[in-house]
Amino acid sequence: MNSREPEGASCGLPHELPEKILLAHGGGGRLMQQLIRGAFSENFHNSYLSTEHDSAVLPAPSGRLAFTTDTYVVKPIFFPGGDIGRLSVFGTVNDLAMSGARPLYLSTGMILEEGFPLESLQRIARSMREAADLCGVQIVTGDTKVVEHGKGDGIFINTAGVGVIEHSLNIQPSSLAEGDAVLLTGDLGRHGIAIMAAREGLEFETTIESDCAPLAAMVLDLLDACVELHCLRDLTRGGLASALNEIAAKASRAIVIEEMQIPVRTEVRGACEMLGLDPLYVANEGRMVAILPAKEASRALEILRRHESGKEAVLIGKVEAKPASRVVLRNAIGVTRYLDLLSGEQMPRIC
Amino acid sequence: MNSREPEGASCGLPHELPEKILLAHGGGGRLMQQLIRGAFSENFHNSYLSTEHDSAVLPAPSGRLAFTTDTYVVKPIFFPGGDIGRLSVFGTVNDLAMSGARPLYLSTGMILEEGFPLESLQRIARSMREAADLCGVQIVTGDTKVVEHGKGDGIFINTAGVGVIEHSLNIQPSSLAEGDAVLLTGDLGRHGIAIMAAREGLEFETTIESDCAPLAAMVLDLLDACVELHCLRDLTRGGLASALNEIAAKASRAIVIEEMQIPVRTEVRGACEMLGLDPLYVANEGRMVAILPAKEASRALEILRRHESGKEAVLIGKVEAKPASRVVLRNAIGVTRYLDLLSGEQMPRIC
Repeated sequence: MNSREPEGASCGLPHELPEKILLAHGGGGRLMQQLIRGAFSENFHNSYLSTEHDSAVLPAPSGRLAFTTDTYVVKPIFFPGGDIGRLSVFGTVNDLAMSGARPLYLSTGMILEEGFPLESLQRIARSMREAADLCGVQIVTGDTKVVEHGKGDGIFINTAGVGVIEHSLNIQPSSLAEGDAVLLTGDLGRHGIAIMAAREGLEFETTIESDCAPLAAMVLDLLDACVELHCLRDLTRGGLASALNEIAAKASRAIVIEEMQIPVRTEVRGACEMLGLDPLYVANEGRMVAILPAKEASRALEILRRHESGKEAVLIGKVEAKPASRVVLRNAIGVTRYLDLLSGEQMPRIC
Repeated sequence: MNSREPEGASCGLPHELPEKILLAHGGGGRLMQQLIRGAFSENFHNSYLSTEHDSAVLPAPSGRLAFTTDTYVVKPIFFPGGDIGRLSVFGTVNDLAMSGARPLYLSTGMILEEGFPLESLQRIARSMREAADLCGVQIVTGDTKVVEHGKGDGIFINTAGVGVIEHSLNIQPSSLAEGDAVLLTGDLGRHGIAIMAAREGLEFETTIESDCAPLAAMVLDLLDACVELHCLRDLTRGGLASALNEIAAKASRAIVIEEMQIPVRTEVRGACEMLGLDPLYVANEGRMVAILPAKEASRALEILRRHESGKEAVLIGKVEAKPASRVVLRNAIGVTRYLDLLSGEQMPRIC
């Protein structure tokens, strides 16, 4: 037996989990098994997940695969409208949906800081389970590491996702065509402002809640209705402006949008002014743009508006040939300016 | 334009990357694109990877899927015989191989601490590329986050992996049968001791190098030869003893192993004595046990020994009915004792 092992290791440990995460919870031993049972097993259970297997074995999918990953380091971990767990499920599900995939499976890799409250971990695990149930995905495999106090920041969560593509469209920037319509599924900036307000202790008349929501059901409904989608993009870090810039650059087309058409709530606009932020660059976690042939636009808007997070879906602009690779914003009186890619970080650790 | 944006953001930035990671590198803007180009693009390039897409789109696989994830927080990040990048590829490839899958695709999610040297990031990315090439897997999707100085520890890497299962075996603990042979692919303890020595500044007569290696080729050769594999397990955190305990418990069988058959190098044994560690509990990163019908053992050993990391493969024990769920170690003079699961962590941040 090992001299570093705490007393009592081989003669049974107390069944109660300690209130805070210990370094030993990451060691692959008995304490780790207790942590998995105490924090994860009640929330993450399905026929594929086996916490004591090296990988999940899943049925052969019936189409091309979509595969994506995202790491969540949001601060604070609990915020109005969501938490890091909910975000880590919706965010990765949304990335899968943006290639037109049906999201199926998630993995979760957690880095816990020594001393992190067990109660918070359990709350996050519950939140992940509820979010996964809402999206119809299963968390099938996971891993937990613990780092020393001061070498992490409470909890970081990576989720990777696998989905199946059941259609033959290539939903990507290179599919853009001149004259395509650019649709936006709702108002901008709530996630970023909710996080900033929570972090800075700002108080507004009404609490601004994150827009954090899953987008896959909307996308699958568009596909079921055979809407010819050219490109989809969720508007996370860098907001609408960054997403459109990336698409325009990859497609070598111009995207021209109308400022007046872009919904931004009054309280978000006010907070942005106070914080010196432009809502077009602020992060969202439940918004996307859909780019598709103009003749499909009204049918697509009708489908999007059937969904809670697409109720305010709107046509905001179109694809043009020139100026290639640029995004142009036209204001109420017809004056245009380029919307550029920001240099760096306007809001660190927003997701 | 945003008031927090640094000067010069929209009129072109210097093309040189700074020597250290900035918080702004994680912001989804222009600096992030420069980081991706400067650190990742030259190493991670294949037909599926698009750094500006939300998910990778991959061909439909021809069998069941294996899906796994692991997060790497090893300290130090460079150690004799490997580094965190190499480990993050081999470790996840090995987890896929343990279900008998052919590893195909990896995702990578990095958490960088502000101030992390760019040169180290580039070195790690090169190492990941070389490791992926060696295993025949492709890194098809990735994500990078940056946290403030003091909220991380240089670099943490998550890799998730997808593989395809091209056979109909169920390689898992419940497939164990009484009389099965337990094979071990080589000597124990080198990874853990290499890390501990590097961390503690210990010097031995010869440098002990990590055994860090990919196991998939060995497994695929066994499968190609139609060896009837019952269970595979790589021996990472918690070493041989923990892996066998987990298997015995899930299978409700006994595993009886012979101490004399277990290869441990003299210098590893010496270091373990000095550090008060038991090599049977020390982490490995290129070792596995294979459990299979006794009649298959000699054929399987012959196949394993054709591989560099299986040259010392050996029969170490067998599966018995009782004592159910326990691991029994028999020493040179026939005295037996239970090998228990350790309580917690004998070596934090070993992988």
